[in-house]
Amino acid sequence: MLADLIVKNAAHVLTCRGPAPRAGAAQRDVSPIRDGTVASFEGSIVFVGDAREGDAAIQPAPNATIVDASDNTVLPGFVDPHTHVVFAGDRRDELRRRLAGATYREIAAEGGGILESVRETRAASEDELVSQTRVRLDEMLRCGTTTCEAKSGYGLTTESELKLLRAIRRLDREHPVDLVATFLGAHDVPVEFRDRRSAFVDLVVNEMIPSVAAEGLAEWCDVFCETGVFTPDEARRILQAGQQAGLKSRIHADELSLSGGAAVAVEVGARSADHLVFVDEDHAARMARAPVVATLLPAAAFFLKLGRFAPARMLIESNVPVALATDVNPGGGFSPSMPFVIALACFAMNLTLEEAIVATTLNAAFALDRHDRIGSLETGKKMDAVVLAGGPVDLLRVGASPIRMVIKNGKIVWSSSG
Amino acid sequence: MLADLIVKNAAHVLTCRGPAPRAGAAQRDVSPIRDGTVASFEGSIVFVGDAREGDAAIQPAPNATIVDASDNTVLPGFVDPHTHVVFAGDRRDELRRRLAGATYREIAAEGGGILESVRETRAASEDELVSQTRVRLDEMLRCGTTTCEAKSGYGLTTESELKLLRAIRRLDREHPVDLVATFLGAHDVPVEFRDRRSAFVDLVVNEMIPSVAAEGLAEWCDVFCETGVFTPDEARRILQAGQQAGLKSRIHADELSLSGGAAVAVEVGARSADHLVFVDEDHAARMARAPVVATLLPAAAFFLKLGRFAPARMLIESNVPVALATDVNPGGGFSPSMPFVIALACFAMNLTLEEAIVATTLNAAFALDRHDRIGSLETGKKMDAVVLAGGPVDLLRVGASPIRMVIKNGKIVWSSSG
Repeated sequence: MLADLIVKNAAHVLTCRGPAPRAGAAQRDVSPIRDGTVASFEGSIVFVGDAREGDAAIQPAPNATIVDASDNTVLPGFVDPHTHVVFAGDRRDELRRRLAGATYREIAAEGGGILESVRETRAASEDELVSQTRVRLDEMLRCGTTTCEAKSGYGLTTESELKLLRAIRRLDREHPVDLVATFLGAHDVPVEFRDRRSAFVDLVVNEMIPSVAAEGLAEWCDVFCETGVFTPDEARRILQAGQQAGLKSRIHADELSLSGGAAVAVEVGARSADHLVFVDEDHAARMARAPVVATLLPAAAFFLKLGRFAPARMLIESNVPVALATDVNPGGGFSPSMPFVIALACFAMNLTLEEAIVATTLNAAFALDRHDRIGSLETGKKMDAVVLAGGPVDLLRVGASPIRMVIKNGKIVWSSSG
Repeated sequence: MLADLIVKNAAHVLTCRGPAPRAGAAQRDVSPIRDGTVASFEGSIVFVGDAREGDAAIQPAPNATIVDASDNTVLPGFVDPHTHVVFAGDRRDELRRRLAGATYREIAAEGGGILESVRETRAASEDELVSQTRVRLDEMLRCGTTTCEAKSGYGLTTESELKLLRAIRRLDREHPVDLVATFLGAHDVPVEFRDRRSAFVDLVVNEMIPSVAAEGLAEWCDVFCETGVFTPDEARRILQAGQQAGLKSRIHADELSLSGGAAVAVEVGARSADHLVFVDEDHAARMARAPVVATLLPAAAFFLKLGRFAPARMLIESNVPVALATDVNPGGGFSPSMPFVIALACFAMNLTLEEAIVATTLNAAFALDRHDRIGSLETGKKMDAVVLAGGPVDLLRVGASPIRMVIKNGKIVWSSSG
């Protein structure tokens, strides 16, 4: 077959091909090939397999790009299924306060935290949001991310939430990283609704969701379900209103306490419940049956100094498919790096490297309902891939990125040699 | 005064100037300057201060290099006071085994761990060691390290230990990073001495130390004092023999249990006790009085999955000066990055950012007895500096290095723009 991009003779190809999601023992199935070749034509993968078979089967197109990947590892581009990457301003003062001992809840109670980003994001234009976010997407791309989820949620008025989602749509079109849009109007209760929270939930349900759906600006609806933020009843109402408008469900669940988010996820048929630092075995069993993906964000737990991580091994042993995400955001999401998330997953949550790789590729694609197009290297899927100098374990060398090349849609969009 | 390198108008200069070591409340004194300039001539700092005063006082030499550091942060080059950077081979299979659940002690008991690196290092030539290590020093330099300690200890015969130390001497001469040499013949008991450990200690004391001293190949003597490795009595004997030959003392102490290393450090007057994951308040009080620097290696605790970190806050509150190091090594020292170590110190050991910066600059220089020449930006010291794009907190963005420029001895030796 004809190919216009051929990545050949790779020491290791971690294809991650096969059924999604992967749960339990299958979570560690990366379907590896030794001495392999991956080739694509016009952005779609046409060959994945043994290098010698590839030499016989592949016909290079005129002007084909051929990458010698000897001593390299090729794996699917990372899919980052939980980010708040679109925002204005920063929260460095807050970080300094936290490093000196203040807690996330204390800062939030004083009107800092999410609400500080809300003030700055409301004041920013769509153009400013696009240009500030582009820099962060560039960083993510250099770390190997080829698709990310992006949430609204720093506007909290109908118009500013629409502005955030329009910025996401523009960035998806303009930037090599593909963005998947999530409406998170219920990220926090804004100051002006502090004494009438049910009126804010009404606004989300009756005005924001219909407006978002009418413009076709989001694929997903999300809620921050947590003690002091939105209750399970409010979360259920919002997610069901989203579903009626055509928005699929995902949820911030059980991050700071066992506050009911995982239960709501199972009840409404959410695709993913995220954070889950406090989830227990009973809820894990219910998630496994649904199934609801457990999207874990160890960098958030690390940067927020929660003192614990989600019980990842328990979730895997309960047959819940596990995905991993960065949680890029202005408060505690300082790292754009899926490799850093993989290192935290391996060394702080006891995943094997293979489990963590499936969690950042195929299972993450499933968490975004994109597993038919991305998340593994197999014929017919998009040619989104990362080439590492060295072996798979080099991903764990925090501070010395092994990423040699990032391929998006069959094009080399970043390489370490400039 | 005349200057051939002028880094001007920096938003933040973290000078770290003043007395060393910094302990207790002084550990967080980075002596910052807002809108500052640092200038040097022929590698020595000639001006540190207010940018406008600098404009008046500094006369640029012909062909002077002038760096506009607006919106940047300038701080001393990082000093990494504990590395095993010189070795041959790698231990990836061991890492995969550990990720699947094997412990460091199980692997060591089977002849893996340090002894695997010993086999490969003995087989390598000095040239091979130099060329393999140069790549790692390049990585460290890109992470902002301008001086590092480097230990022998993967030879464990007199000749192979001398080979390692000669490689360190060559690298110190040939590479921009300055290396400080430590003899660690007592890193482990080699296989051929397993049944006669006291004969190996005799060899270290009676043959290795005199040979190292005769060639002037090391400044420091170190011992891995730990249950199953060297006892406190053996450590004391080796360090005292080193002192008699002119080698100053440092020690691997209380990493895997409270096994007596900190006590030996105080007793023999060691400059630094390293690791200290299990040190208690009683030993901390004795270290504070000596003083013995506590050199902490949180990346080692992280990568070895020890499940805990050294009690850094207790040490600071006990007035022990704290330094931080990477522990670069083939087994669990996968990260060359002092910024990653700083992030672990802040988020996993509850240091403030300022405490962590002093721990990686001035206190680290004191831990190597180099505080008269490096570790802070002040007149007369070497111009070793790091320029960050952004503010000091950007150091914590793991996976998105803010390092714009690394300056060694008054020369720009690395910059992010190529």
